[in-house]
Amino acid sequence: MKLADIYKAFQGDIEFIEAELERTLSAKHPVLKEASTGLLKAGGKRIRPVLVLLAGKFGDYQLDRLKHIAVTLELIHMGSLVHDDVIDNAPLRRGRETVMSRWDNRVAMYTGDYIFGHAIETTKAFSDKRVHTIISDVMNQICRGEIEQIRDQYNWDQGLRIYLRRIKRKTALLIAVSCQLGAIVSGATDELQKNLYYFAYFLGMSYQIMDDILDFVGTNEQLGKPAGGDLRQGNVTLPALYAIEHTPGFKQRLEKSLTKESSLEMDMEPLLNEVRTSGGIEYAQAMSDRYLHKANTLLMGFPDIDAKRHLIEVASYIGRRKY
Amino acid sequence: MKLADIYKAFQGDIEFIEAELERTLSAKHPVLKEASTGLLKAGGKRIRPVLVLLAGKFGDYQLDRLKHIAVTLELIHMGSLVHDDVIDNAPLRRGRETVMSRWDNRVAMYTGDYIFGHAIETTKAFSDKRVHTIISDVMNQICRGEIEQIRDQYNWDQGLRIYLRRIKRKTALLIAVSCQLGAIVSGATDELQKNLYYFAYFLGMSYQIMDDILDFVGTNEQLGKPAGGDLRQGNVTLPALYAIEHTPGFKQRLEKSLTKESSLEMDMEPLLNEVRTSGGIEYAQAMSDRYLHKANTLLMGFPDIDAKRHLIEVASYIGRRKY
Repeated sequence: MKLADIYKAFQGDIEFIEAELERTLSAKHPVLKEASTGLLKAGGKRIRPVLVLLAGKFGDYQLDRLKHIAVTLELIHMGSLVHDDVIDNAPLRRGRETVMSRWDNRVAMYTGDYIFGHAIETTKAFSDKRVHTIISDVMNQICRGEIEQIRDQYNWDQGLRIYLRRIKRKTALLIAVSCQLGAIVSGATDELQKNLYYFAYFLGMSYQIMDDILDFVGTNEQLGKPAGGDLRQGNVTLPALYAIEHTPGFKQRLEKSLTKESSLEMDMEPLLNEVRTSGGIEYAQAMSDRYLHKANTLLMGFPDIDAKRHLIEVASYIGRRKY
Repeated sequence: MKLADIYKAFQGDIEFIEAELERTLSAKHPVLKEASTGLLKAGGKRIRPVLVLLAGKFGDYQLDRLKHIAVTLELIHMGSLVHDDVIDNAPLRRGRETVMSRWDNRVAMYTGDYIFGHAIETTKAFSDKRVHTIISDVMNQICRGEIEQIRDQYNWDQGLRIYLRRIKRKTALLIAVSCQLGAIVSGATDELQKNLYYFAYFLGMSYQIMDDILDFVGTNEQLGKPAGGDLRQGNVTLPALYAIEHTPGFKQRLEKSLTKESSLEMDMEPLLNEVRTSGGIEYAQAMSDRYLHKANTLLMGFPDIDAKRHLIEVASYIGRRKY
């Protein structure tokens, strides 16, 4: 069974959310419209909306309430993707192209702001202050994660704790909140709200670690971009962290050869291969599996409804995904 | 009488808002804290909070309700200032410095996001959906204004309508909404809500036009930066617009000499002097005065309370300001 099959069970509701997203971003302004609907068409797996809906099944499932949560969280995700793409080390090779890319960067920044603005607009549907607090808190955590990532670039002395905190803020919390808010607005029990939150948090951690592994082992086709982008940008992810701690001299080679200034022109293959052969991939895979196992263990205690089986499928999909 | 004297009448309340702003931005995260409190200490005139409070006097003045509006709108203003400072044409002269400045740009982007996140968090105090709609709408209008500004840079064929729409979105609406929301949460009459909105809208238009004039005629000390930054960045403001339409050959000289690529190294004085002697300054001043006059005319119809006199002072301050 693939994730698409889970979506099939919800196809009507997912399509409804998709239409809501499109309606929300249908700005009259041509530039914004182009930028943001381009993003819509690029699709994405809509994991967050699917989790909102599935969590809603553990309470009084009302699509009209869940849709606002699903749209808000997917817009926050899209806005942060846009801001994530604002590059800080654009190639400075051909003058004209660079000027263009920097011009586009500012447009990207404001397009992200615009998408965040619409995310906020959607939350006005809720009178429950807790919903607002959770949403603004997760937005702030994402910002903190992003800033920490920038500050820690090319710092080869990070520990596991720093890495885990960063991916929690950057990725796992928004996924956790998807299940939590789906449960809250559906009036699921406090116990279920909490367990759905932790289930999705573990899922999100597993997901991001897989993402970080794929950046080392994925093909260009799978990734849609060349492998090794994280290391090139100085983002120290789990496989690299392991190699730094276990491959003698690797840290010194990174320090010596890979800096913000050198990274653009550099042939990354030798360094990537050191990570690939360090045992770091296997270590990260085991860590991802452990989070997935925690998620599945929590799931076992959930009420035995269809949505539970769908959540198992989502978890299994995340464990197997190759893109 | 100076603006400071108006503030004196409200000193206690303004200080209370200031403390709220500080409390809101006191992140545990050191980088964010540094960035955002630096911004707080840089101060600013707090025009938006003052207008919120003054508008509140036309209804049932309750500081505990007004403070959330004042903090939210000042945070939106601060966040957009931070994003406005994210430069798209940083000098590319000394490699190292440029890499640093671009690195700081991404941090600035996320700091702005973080401040917006807190602005949003503050609005959870309101159950009135209209408040949420107005706030998210003004955020989106600011984004549209910013994107339009970027798209229209170095386009010397803009008309007055484009300019007025841009400054409305970038500046005047947030100022208009300050009065409007102060009136709404204080339960002022619909008529007063509307008139306070338009009063502040006219004020905001006048304010921004003055700002655009000062960029041509202000001294380095008054501006805190070299004059002519707008034209250098290709932002066509009202004095330049007038010169383009009335000084023979000026548009051709701009087209020929001033481009994104050339602007960094360029001696702007000859072009600035063309604008200064074109009559564009006087034209813009007259336009600013006309908006101010519209604001004051509306004011005349307001109930005769202290706040009305304070609003007159704010308007008069804006007409006279030189920084």
